Amino acid sequence: MRPFVFINVAMSADGKISTRERRQVKISGKQDLLRTDMLKAGSDAVMVGIGTVLADNPSLTVKTLELREQRVAQGKDEHPIRVVVDSRGRTPPGADILHKGTGQRIIAVSKRAPFERLKELERYATIVTAGEQEVDLVELFEFLHRHGVRRLMVEGGGTLIWSLFSRGLVDEVQTFVGNMVIGGSDAPTPVDGEGFLREEDFVRLRFADVTPLDGGVLIRWRVKQ
Amino acid sequence: MRPFVFINVAMSADGKISTRERRQVKISGKQDLLRTDMLKAGSDAVMVGIGTVLADNPSLTVKTLELREQRVAQGKDEHPIRVVVDSRGRTPPGADILHKGTGQRIIAVSKRAPFERLKELERYATIVTAGEQEVDLVELFEFLHRHGVRRLMVEGGGTLIWSLFSRGLVDEVQTFVGNMVIGGSDAPTPVDGEGFLREEDFVRLRFADVTPLDGGVLIRWRVKQ
Repeated sequence: MRPFVFINVAMSADGKISTRERRQVKISGKQDLLRTDMLKAGSDAVMVGIGTVLADNPSLTVKTLELREQRVAQGKDEHPIRVVVDSRGRTPPGADILHKGTGQRIIAVSKRAPFERLKELERYATIVTAGEQEVDLVELFEFLHRHGVRRLMVEGGGTLIWSLFSRGLVDEVQTFVGNMVIGGSDAPTPVDGEGFLREEDFVRLRFADVTPLDGGVLIRWRVKQ
Repeated sequence: MRPFVFINVAMSADGKISTRERRQVKISGKQDLLRTDMLKAGSDAVMVGIGTVLADNPSLTVKTLELREQRVAQGKDEHPIRVVVDSRGRTPPGADILHKGTGQRIIAVSKRAPFERLKELERYATIVTAGEQEVDLVELFEFLHRHGVRRLMVEGGGTLIWSLFSRGLVDEVQTFVGNMVIGGSDAPTPVDGEGFLREEDFVRLRFADVTPLDGGVLIRWRVKQ
């Protein structure tokens, strides 16, 4: 048993999520940020990979006061559980995700994460060990499901999203396509990693809907299982 | 003076135009292929980079008989002028683009293209030399305009498209987004090359329209000048 897993990503018109220097750039606008905030507030947990924590230092908190109040009125924490997939335990102890806002944090590591790092990180987060070299995502998702996570939002980056797709662990994708061209063969994309080599291995999507938004478009896809 | 330049590209939902091995893959379907054929038939010239010639060996001919007949009835060649941007003259003399279908061919090279190669290629194509190391696209576009090309379609790949965007030589972009995930940090994307590093340098687009097509979506953008 695992949660419903959906990916929310903003990319440029040419499929980049930032520059090749991994500088955080503004791709979406106000409406898309509100939409993302609503998705977050409606999720039990929100997940990112360690690369995104190191590059962007996101807090992954719900930004809109009304949405936080709504969650509290429903008996929930102000913010969903924040989950970092971090095989080697490299999350900086001062990272915003560990300090900004109330609510639970989980750092998922593999057995190769050094003990001293975990010793410090467990002051701020629950450490979940799953997998030998890399985090075993199936095991992590079973853990999250056992702990009540039914709806999991994935915010990136491309390496984590690749791991999820390559293991068939994604149910839905929401892609905001912004009105700019970034370019760059080395710029990060929504789905990085190794990539599929054979056409029969590609993940197939079912188009759900498309909406013009913030000068770009929001495309929603369901993953064909 | 230069032609009106538009880019037509098909990418996966995660912004890839093929696998990291550059294997040609089916991204769009019948409707999109017909749309592309109509765009081609309505253009004076269609252009690709040498990478695309070497990877895919496209003929770039108009596939639909009725569209070819229409062109002939208008006093044009069956196929638009086919242009390869090929700094070093690496187009294989047996490439389909040089042999399939009637009509003119142009191979644009720079001054570093070896003479012996050009000697052979000029049996099949007009050789245009522009630029020292790389093809000078501005000069090439002036040449094309002088020779009556008013509407130029660019079919890729990512390196040529990057060169065009980085020099401000694009007027319109049509992107078909297909219903699959390919993944891969090394997979080619619609706009590769070096990429922009600063947000203020990004090419800004104006959203024109979006249409569901072949299980994916077609997005049209105009380039803000």
